[in-house]
Amino acid sequence: MSAASESNGDIVQTMQGLGRQARAAAAVLARATPDQKDAALRAAAAELERRSDAILAANALDMEAGRQKGLSQAMLDRLYLDAGRVAAMARGLVEIEALADPIGHVMAEWVRPNGLRIQRVRVPLGVIGIIYESRPNVTADAGALCLKSGNAVILRGGSESFHSSTAIHACLVAGLEAAGLPPAAIQMVPTRSRDAVGLLLRGLDGCVDVLVPRGGKNLIARVQADARVPVIGHLEGLCHVYVHASAEPAMAAQLVTNAKMRRTGICGAAETLLIDRAALPTHWAPIAESLLAAGCELRGDPEICALEPRAKPASDEDWRTEYLDAILSVRTVAGIDEAIEHIACYGSGHTEAIVAEDALAVSRFFHDLDSAILLHNASTQFADGGEFGMGAEIGIATGRIHARGPVGAEQLTSYKYLVYGSGQTRP
Amino acid sequence: MSAASESNGDIVQTMQGLGRQARAAAAVLARATPDQKDAALRAAAAELERRSDAILAANALDMEAGRQKGLSQAMLDRLYLDAGRVAAMARGLVEIEALADPIGHVMAEWVRPNGLRIQRVRVPLGVIGIIYESRPNVTADAGALCLKSGNAVILRGGSESFHSSTAIHACLVAGLEAAGLPPAAIQMVPTRSRDAVGLLLRGLDGCVDVLVPRGGKNLIARVQADARVPVIGHLEGLCHVYVHASAEPAMAAQLVTNAKMRRTGICGAAETLLIDRAALPTHWAPIAESLLAAGCELRGDPEICALEPRAKPASDEDWRTEYLDAILSVRTVAGIDEAIEHIACYGSGHTEAIVAEDALAVSRFFHDLDSAILLHNASTQFADGGEFGMGAEIGIATGRIHARGPVGAEQLTSYKYLVYGSGQTRP
Repeated sequence: MSAASESNGDIVQTMQGLGRQARAAAAVLARATPDQKDAALRAAAAELERRSDAILAANALDMEAGRQKGLSQAMLDRLYLDAGRVAAMARGLVEIEALADPIGHVMAEWVRPNGLRIQRVRVPLGVIGIIYESRPNVTADAGALCLKSGNAVILRGGSESFHSSTAIHACLVAGLEAAGLPPAAIQMVPTRSRDAVGLLLRGLDGCVDVLVPRGGKNLIARVQADARVPVIGHLEGLCHVYVHASAEPAMAAQLVTNAKMRRTGICGAAETLLIDRAALPTHWAPIAESLLAAGCELRGDPEICALEPRAKPASDEDWRTEYLDAILSVRTVAGIDEAIEHIACYGSGHTEAIVAEDALAVSRFFHDLDSAILLHNASTQFADGGEFGMGAEIGIATGRIHARGPVGAEQLTSYKYLVYGSGQTRP
Repeated sequence: MSAASESNGDIVQTMQGLGRQARAAAAVLARATPDQKDAALRAAAAELERRSDAILAANALDMEAGRQKGLSQAMLDRLYLDAGRVAAMARGLVEIEALADPIGHVMAEWVRPNGLRIQRVRVPLGVIGIIYESRPNVTADAGALCLKSGNAVILRGGSESFHSSTAIHACLVAGLEAAGLPPAAIQMVPTRSRDAVGLLLRGLDGCVDVLVPRGGKNLIARVQADARVPVIGHLEGLCHVYVHASAEPAMAAQLVTNAKMRRTGICGAAETLLIDRAALPTHWAPIAESLLAAGCELRGDPEICALEPRAKPASDEDWRTEYLDAILSVRTVAGIDEAIEHIACYGSGHTEAIVAEDALAVSRFFHDLDSAILLHNASTQFADGGEFGMGAEIGIATGRIHARGPVGAEQLTSYKYLVYGSGQTRP
C-alpha cells in the first residue's frame, strides 16, 4: 500500500484492527507455555535462513529507493542486508530462545502473620508498540524479545526499510503459525503513512500498553510529545569518561580509547572526556597519543589545545553533542566536584565511567551521579544488555519509570500478586 | 491567594518556581541519610501533635465553606478532622519512619566472566506530583512516603481541603527544617486555581518525573488525558468475589460479607459476587442471609431475584458500577470459564477473590485472570499495602507499567547500575 492510495479513514480502520487483534493475541500469548514460544522462535529463525534470498531481494528494493532518495552512506549502511546479516538475525532469534522465560517467575514470596501467603509473579506487559528507524534487524530482534516475554507487539519501522521489514516480519509470522500461536502476536503496520504513527502514539483505543521508541532525537521528541500511553524511552547516550588524578595512566589511555573508538556509533560510546588538571602532566600524553593513533578527532578546552596542537577548540555546543563518530570533546576539571557538576549539567543520564584508584573518588562518583549506568575502571562500551548478562535488549532506557538501563525480556514484564488464604477475613 | 486575584502569568511563574525548587531539593534528598529523613518525619509528627488546635481551626474553615458550598455528607465526612484524626496522622508518620529505607538497597548483584561486578541499586524517582481530592490526611501520608523514599514532592489537594492541607503541610516543612533538609522537598501548590493542575500535568518543564493521581474517575480521566509525564494510576476497584461450587458454604458467606461490608468505601471492597449455578441450592441462602443481616442491598440477575425476593433486579450498568456503598450486584455463572469471562469484561484489574476448595479452579483463576491482586479463600479487603506487609501506601496501582498493586515507599523508586571493573575494555 502506498500512502497516496489510502484515505485517512482507511488508516484509522486498519490501525484499530491491528490494536484489537494485538489485544486478543496478547491474552493468548500470556498463557502460552515457554515451549510454544521457543518453538515459534526456532521456526522463525529457520524461516529467516530459508527465505534469505527473498529478504535480500526485498532489501535491494529498499536500497535502490534509498539511493534514489539520496540517503546518506551511513543510513544506507544501516539499511543494507547481506546473507551474513540475515544469518546473524537468525542466530539472534536462537539466542533469545535460549534466554530464561521470565513469565510466571515468582519474584518474591512471603507469609503474613495471619497466614496469608503472598507471591509476586511476573506477567507480560500486554501490547507493546515499537517505533524504530531504518535498521531492518530491529524487526526481528524486537519482535522476538516481545514474543519471549509474552507480549503482543505492533512494529512500526522506518519507511526506508519497509520492504526488508515486511519480508522479515513474514518469517516471524510463519514461526508463530508453526507453533500454533496467533499470527497477530507480532504485527507490522502495513502502511508507510505517518498518520499511522500518530494513531499508534494515541494507543489505539486502549489497545497499546506501552510504547518503545528506538531512534534519533527527532523520533524520540515526537513520541514524547504526542504519546498518550506510557513510553519506555531510550534517549541519546552522551556518555562521559572521567580520568581522576589517581588513575593508572596506561589503564586510562586504554579505557578512554576503547570507550570512544571500539564502535563510535553505539549509544554507549564515550563523547566527552573529563580529566583532572593534576593528571594532565602525567596522563594526557598517553591518552592523546592512543586516541590520535586510533584516528580520533579531539576538541579540547584551552588547556587541552595548548598541550595538543592537533586538538581543535571545543565550543559549549560540543559538551552537548552526541557525535556517534570518531570525535571526542575533552575538558579539564579541577577535581571530582567539577566532573560531577559537568556530567549533571550536560549528560543524558545514560552511562558514565570513572578511571581512578582512589576509593573515595569512586564512591563519590557512584553516589552523587544518577545515570542509569556508572562504571569504575571499565569501558562505557559495556553498556549493553548482553554484556550485563541480561541477554538481548531493545535498548538502554534513560527514563526513571519502569525500566532503567538495558531493556530485555525481563524488563518487558509487569507482575501480579497471588494471595493464598484459608478463609481469612479482615478484622 | 484566591484564584480571582491571580493572573495566569502569576500562576505559571509560581508553578515553574515550585518545579525548579523541587528539582533542586530532589538532588539533596537523594543523598540524604536515612537518619536525616527519619528525623524529619519524627519532627513533623511532633509538629502535627503540637499544632493540632491550629489544624482543627483551619479544618473548621474548610468545613464551613464546604457546608455553604453544599458538599454531600460523605464529602464532609472525608474532609472532617478532629483531635483523634490528627493524632492518627502523626502516628502514620511515625509508622512510615519505622519502615526500612529503600534507597541505596542493593537489589541484585552478580559477577560477569570478565570480572565486572554489577550491582543494581535503588535510587529515588526524583520529583513526584501528587494530585488528590478532599481527604486532608493524604497531605501527610503522601508527603511522608515521598520523603522516606528520597523523592521531592509537589502536592496538589482538593480545593475543599485547602486550609486543612496548608496547616498540615506547614508541619511537614517544619520537620524538614528541623532535620536540616530543604523545605522545598515537600511543597504544596499555593493556589486553588485549576490552571495550576494543568501546568503540573505538563510536568513543569521537565521538573516532574511522575504523577500519582488519587481520586475519583473524573480526576483520573483528566490526568490520563492531559498528562505529559508518566502516571502511576490508581483506577477504580471494581472487585469481584467468585464462589465456586467447591467452596465451603460457611466460609463463602463470611468472606463475601467481609469483602463487601467491612468497609464499603475502600477500593478493595467487593462490588460484584459471581456464584456457580451448581452452588445456588447450598451456598446462596447463607450468603444472602449474612449480607442482608449486615444491611447490604442486593441487585441480582433473574435467577437470584427468583430465589431472594428482597433482591432488586440488576441492569448491565450494575456490572460496571463501583458502588463504594452497601450494595452488591450478584450474578449466576455456569462455572469458572464464565466467571473469568465476566471479570475480564467488567473488572477494573484491581482485586478479585475466588472461594473454592478445588485446586484446579484456583489455578485457573490465578493463571487466566490478570488483575493486580488475586486471592484464594481470603477477603478482597486485604488489598492494602499494610496488610501485604509492605507498609504505608498511596494506593493500589491498576496500570501495568512501573508499579502494580500497593504503591509504597519501595515502589516510588527507580534504580541504577554500578559496575566495578579493573581495567576491562570491550573486545
